[in-house]
Amino acid sequence: MIERAELVSTGAELLSGRSVNTHARLLGERLRAVGIELVRDTTVPDGLAVIRDAVAAALQRVELVFVSGGLGPTVDDLTRDALAELLGCGIVTDAAALAEMTERMERAGRVMNAARRRQALVVEGAEVLLNRVGAAPGQRLTTADGKTVFLLPGPPNEFRYILGEYIEPWLRREQAGAGALRERLLLTQGIGESDIVQRFELAGFPPDGVMTAYCAGAGRVEVRLEPAGPEVADAVLDAAAEEAARLLVPYVYARERVALEDVIGRLLAERGQTLATAESCTGGMIGARLTAVPGSSVYYWGGVVAYADAVKAALLGVDEAVLRQEGAVSEPVAAQMADGVRQRLGADYGVSVTGIAGPGGGSAEKPVGLVYVGVADAAGVQVERFVYPGDRESIREATSRAALALLYRRLVS
Amino acid sequence: MIERAELVSTGAELLSGRSVNTHARLLGERLRAVGIELVRDTTVPDGLAVIRDAVAAALQRVELVFVSGGLGPTVDDLTRDALAELLGCGIVTDAAALAEMTERMERAGRVMNAARRRQALVVEGAEVLLNRVGAAPGQRLTTADGKTVFLLPGPPNEFRYILGEYIEPWLRREQAGAGALRERLLLTQGIGESDIVQRFELAGFPPDGVMTAYCAGAGRVEVRLEPAGPEVADAVLDAAAEEAARLLVPYVYARERVALEDVIGRLLAERGQTLATAESCTGGMIGARLTAVPGSSVYYWGGVVAYADAVKAALLGVDEAVLRQEGAVSEPVAAQMADGVRQRLGADYGVSVTGIAGPGGGSAEKPVGLVYVGVADAAGVQVERFVYPGDRESIREATSRAALALLYRRLVS
Repeated sequence: MIERAELVSTGAELLSGRSVNTHARLLGERLRAVGIELVRDTTVPDGLAVIRDAVAAALQRVELVFVSGGLGPTVDDLTRDALAELLGCGIVTDAAALAEMTERMERAGRVMNAARRRQALVVEGAEVLLNRVGAAPGQRLTTADGKTVFLLPGPPNEFRYILGEYIEPWLRREQAGAGALRERLLLTQGIGESDIVQRFELAGFPPDGVMTAYCAGAGRVEVRLEPAGPEVADAVLDAAAEEAARLLVPYVYARERVALEDVIGRLLAERGQTLATAESCTGGMIGARLTAVPGSSVYYWGGVVAYADAVKAALLGVDEAVLRQEGAVSEPVAAQMADGVRQRLGADYGVSVTGIAGPGGGSAEKPVGLVYVGVADAAGVQVERFVYPGDRESIREATSRAALALLYRRLVS
Repeated sequence: MIERAELVSTGAELLSGRSVNTHARLLGERLRAVGIELVRDTTVPDGLAVIRDAVAAALQRVELVFVSGGLGPTVDDLTRDALAELLGCGIVTDAAALAEMTERMERAGRVMNAARRRQALVVEGAEVLLNRVGAAPGQRLTTADGKTVFLLPGPPNEFRYILGEYIEPWLRREQAGAGALRERLLLTQGIGESDIVQRFELAGFPPDGVMTAYCAGAGRVEVRLEPAGPEVADAVLDAAAEEAARLLVPYVYARERVALEDVIGRLLAERGQTLATAESCTGGMIGARLTAVPGSSVYYWGGVVAYADAVKAALLGVDEAVLRQEGAVSEPVAAQMADGVRQRLGADYGVSVTGIAGPGGGSAEKPVGLVYVGVADAAGVQVERFVYPGDRESIREATSRAALALLYRRLVS
């Protein structure tokens, strides 16, 4: 039974401002599901010695190590070499991987060349995990003392493929009977972390045997209840979760780790209701989030990105006199956008946002960060006003979340 | 002069599947601009000993260390304590930080409580970096041997604020005269990494004194030319960059690290031309990317998220007979969407996408991953067909990129 694992992420691009490392999140999530805790991610540049030493250090601490990246065709792809050196093995061409890559390339009308052929190289003795969405295969290596190292390609879709196709089944076999980490979750929005702490303190929560942990971010706070030890029964955790949910009414929107757009999607699908969006300053972010959910076409009709005022008038029917008098960033425009998109697309709900994301366009009266979000349904329109701090990116993120949050509250009210 | 720095990212949420660590990318980018290389990011959970040891290890290797997260109000926020222990200092309440937080809270109609007050605690002797977009301030600490440790809050917008407001000015002062790392960039799209390598090899590129490095991902390959040593003149790098650009015609779209949407935005703004989008399977992702660029309202009119077929017909004028006969994911529908949105929004260019992002909805004839992207202007409509591998997320990402790439080629053709 494996309890802890580490990740070594390789690639200068992860440290020089070019790419975000998304592997730790994905891997951490999948490992938790089989009762393994990811306890460290060490991100290092492309360098044989630095990769070798980081993997060696990880193998000192844990029995399962994942290495991402550095399996590509160029001379700065050195993960294979680092691992071969660490394990004292050679490097060989894998015939199956080479055949797979050649066939894929021919189908795509490209030819195999020396650089590409490099991607079929594997550490001697590796179990080869064929990559059907990219080129270089994954590899499973075993150390002399029986520890396991998985090598995965760096591109996120290939990393995900190798993880899902080979590594998760392997983990489930290894961990049979381990079960997931025991925890109870409460996802909240509209309440701050310190307010939650205070409510808990006033109520003498948590009870003995239960520990709390918090994660704040992206406009929500996640409360996690964990057993203080293996002797704590599931029933104690369940009872604590119920008490916590009561203490945090009406801020809990989910009891599992789901995005708000998933919860909204389930509610709409269950009720057979539909949704349309009208976005100004978010430019399509809300639609993009809603449609990230598989099956969203059942309840999401679509929307209008009404960036220019002329589009607000022409496609959403916003009154041009109101646009002139009140300005595009105003309560009545948000209301007309929400109702306009609902009616024109024939949806049950319309969601709108209009705001000033900056850095330009602000004034004393209407500062950067001023945002109106609206929700319309057959019963009427509701608009909320916010002023968000931060830069363009965080204002747009916060606005997207506020719109989904308002819609959620309308759906459950 | 500082040459290398490390980041220690703290927070169980970064390893358990809840959050992506975006700090390394941002920090790495900003450090490069002042000639400092970020050489490692160690992500660890919330734990006093593990944070203390990770920072200590980093201070063994480099003279500048950044620590993110763990400055919040709850008992699992332990970065202050870890640093105090490491440096042998106490922890004190900072009056200015407390006053700032109290005032911000009062303005927001919230009250100061014991948990929130914890966020005004700093390591004794720290320079306090007031946080005007969140609660806990940043801190600058100096070790006994003159090394520097910056503590930054974990929420990305607060991290960005403290970095931009205090740390970058400090770095520029420290690094006065250091200059940025010397490199020449070529951003390419539409050509694979190994094809680039082969073109270079055939041409005997690079010349002496110049080294190449590659970063592939997100549908593009970045080629970086670096001097082999300090004696290599800038003119040698410049000449090599020109040669590389010639060898890679027509795939180079930028010579600096910019997103394609920035390049497109500049072209449109220079020419006084405008753009509208019609998105189906991407659900707004293209609009979201275009509007992430400050000032995009000058050239981006907006668009239609035509998720349901009825919206394609009603808002974009797609022929319902064609929708029935050819299906929504087809060449003629992509063409009509691009031209429809261009005409209805009165823009110079219309961009469209329609495809099957999966996991459901595929067939033998129209598999998951089949995508059509279109660009329309006054001269006509151009549509390209792709079949992307991978899951829903990567198909949607690839589709967004393909649409922007097609538009870019149309703009420069």
